[in-house]
Amino acid sequence: MARVVVDVMPKTEILDPQGQAIVGALGRLGHAGVADVRQGKRFELEVDDSVTDAELSEIAESLLANTVIEDWKVTRVQ
Amino acid sequence: MARVVVDVMPKTEILDPQGQAIVGALGRLGHAGVADVRQGKRFELEVDDSVTDAELSEIAESLLANTVIEDWKVTRVQ
Repeated sequence: MARVVVDVMPKTEILDPQGQAIVGALGRLGHAGVADVRQGKRFELEVDDSVTDAELSEIAESLLANTVIEDWKVTRVQ
Repeated sequence: MARVVVDVMPKTEILDPQGQAIVGALGRLGHAGVADVRQGKRFELEVDDSVTDAELSEIAESLLANTVIEDWKVTRVQ
C-alpha cells in the first residue's frame, strides 16, 4: 500500500470567491497581514503498489479535478 | 510576502462520505487498486513577512478548520 496526495487548486486565472471571502473575514478578525487566500481540495489516497503514476494521473485528471478550472498535482508520500 | 499552505483533513475517526463515494466511483471506472480516499481542503495563503507562526496557527484553528471534526497543518513554502 502506498500513500498518495492529490492537490487540486483553482487555476490562477480563475476567480476564487471562497478564498476572497476568507481574506475579508480575516481582515475583520484582525489578521490584516493575509493578502490573498485560495481554497482548493486535498485528497489522500491509499493505493495498491501496482497502481502506476500514469494511472494516478488519469484518476486525478478525470475524476478528482475539473481541468477546465482546476490544476492538479499528484505526490507520493513516504 | 511569504507563501503558506494550510491542509485541513477530516480526523481519522470521522467518517468521510465524500471520500467513500470517490472510492466507489473509482472501482466502477476500473481503478480497483485504490483502497481508500479521504477528501479535505487545501488553502494557499499569501501573508506578510510580519505574520508569525503563532498567528498562522490561530488562523488555521479558528477560521480554516473545524477542530471538532478536522485536523489542520500549517506549512511555509519556499
